[in-house]
Amino acid sequence: MMPADPVTIWTYDWVPEGPRGFVRDIRLRWACEEAGIPYRIASVPFDGRETNHLDRQPFGQVPMLEDGAISLFESGAGLIHLGGKSDALIPPHEKARAEVIQWIFAGLNTLEMVTMPWVVLQWSKENVPAITSWLDNRLAQMEEVLGTREWLVGDGFTLADLIMADVLRVDLVRKHGDRPASEGYIERMTARPAFRKAHADQMAYFEKADEDRRER
Amino acid sequence: MMPADPVTIWTYDWVPEGPRGFVRDIRLRWACEEAGIPYRIASVPFDGRETNHLDRQPFGQVPMLEDGAISLFESGAGLIHLGGKSDALIPPHEKARAEVIQWIFAGLNTLEMVTMPWVVLQWSKENVPAITSWLDNRLAQMEEVLGTREWLVGDGFTLADLIMADVLRVDLVRKHGDRPASEGYIERMTARPAFRKAHADQMAYFEKADEDRRER
Repeated sequence: MMPADPVTIWTYDWVPEGPRGFVRDIRLRWACEEAGIPYRIASVPFDGRETNHLDRQPFGQVPMLEDGAISLFESGAGLIHLGGKSDALIPPHEKARAEVIQWIFAGLNTLEMVTMPWVVLQWSKENVPAITSWLDNRLAQMEEVLGTREWLVGDGFTLADLIMADVLRVDLVRKHGDRPASEGYIERMTARPAFRKAHADQMAYFEKADEDRRER
Repeated sequence: MMPADPVTIWTYDWVPEGPRGFVRDIRLRWACEEAGIPYRIASVPFDGRETNHLDRQPFGQVPMLEDGAISLFESGAGLIHLGGKSDALIPPHEKARAEVIQWIFAGLNTLEMVTMPWVVLQWSKENVPAITSWLDNRLAQMEEVLGTREWLVGDGFTLADLIMADVLRVDLVRKHGDRPASEGYIERMTARPAFRKAHADQMAYFEKADEDRRER
């Protein structure tokens, strides 16, 4: 059998230090590392990102995923596509598969829908009680879930854990309140060799981008 | 062939007037109506919703979808599950399927991630420029997309349009700014017989709930 052509993960050519380690290409890198899916990294310019790759991505965001004729934006969609390639990401049973997809949406449409705006409010030094209490409620509910189980679906790692851990590990969120079960979960997930490799590679990639900028 | 057992869509037993027509069970009702999937409605109590159905739904939200042994929360996950039953919701080609999933995430993790918090800020009479400019940016980008095409994927209705129209049709968002392409799109999607049936049924369901409350 011929080895599969690598998929391509598109990210920015450079980002400031703050978001390094959190740029969402890490979600796709992490999934590829978990599953042994060969991939390569390609870049679009960070400067002018609001308009410079709108032909490929109408919101100027990264990552994008390319796999042969398929070209996708949205990290959630990229993950589900990668999940179709490996039982290490989505188990091959209909019920488990549906539950993984359920938790991906819980991570992105129930948790991140409040963590991200709350972080934006923190950056702008705004304290809006309605948003903070919404955040506190969701984090407390997730703490309950994580207090009862090691994995979100079945008895092993899936994309459900990848997304949930990536949403919860944001520094400001992690420092807000005291949630031992969530903290233990984040520590276990980010100790996985596949996460550590993906994280180290993203950090190295943006350090190299600094060097390239200095040389120009 | 035996007719398929109906799926069950769970919603609240009652909600105040404000959210009627927008409770997210409408997303699943609408999908079933588009595809001719038989369904029945079941309810959990609205009063005490934060804790009273946590065994089924850790965040106290609706809808949930039940289909035989599969029981799911998150409207996005329910839609993808229903999409597996009908080409009228997700076309049967890998590339189109991936693109529908991409747009479902764009609706829920890129658009609704800012529309919903912005609406919550409006309710609490807070004006936070960082959130409003984020909203304006995303709505303008979506207006660009909708100015160039009638459907988000291919040449017909899919779950991509269902989600995007449902996210964009929120009253406060719709009244904020002037976006003719988006407005035309919302009008076209909500004029579909399947949406009108789902909407009328949800309104009637909650009116009936009012009557039941008065009789108690």
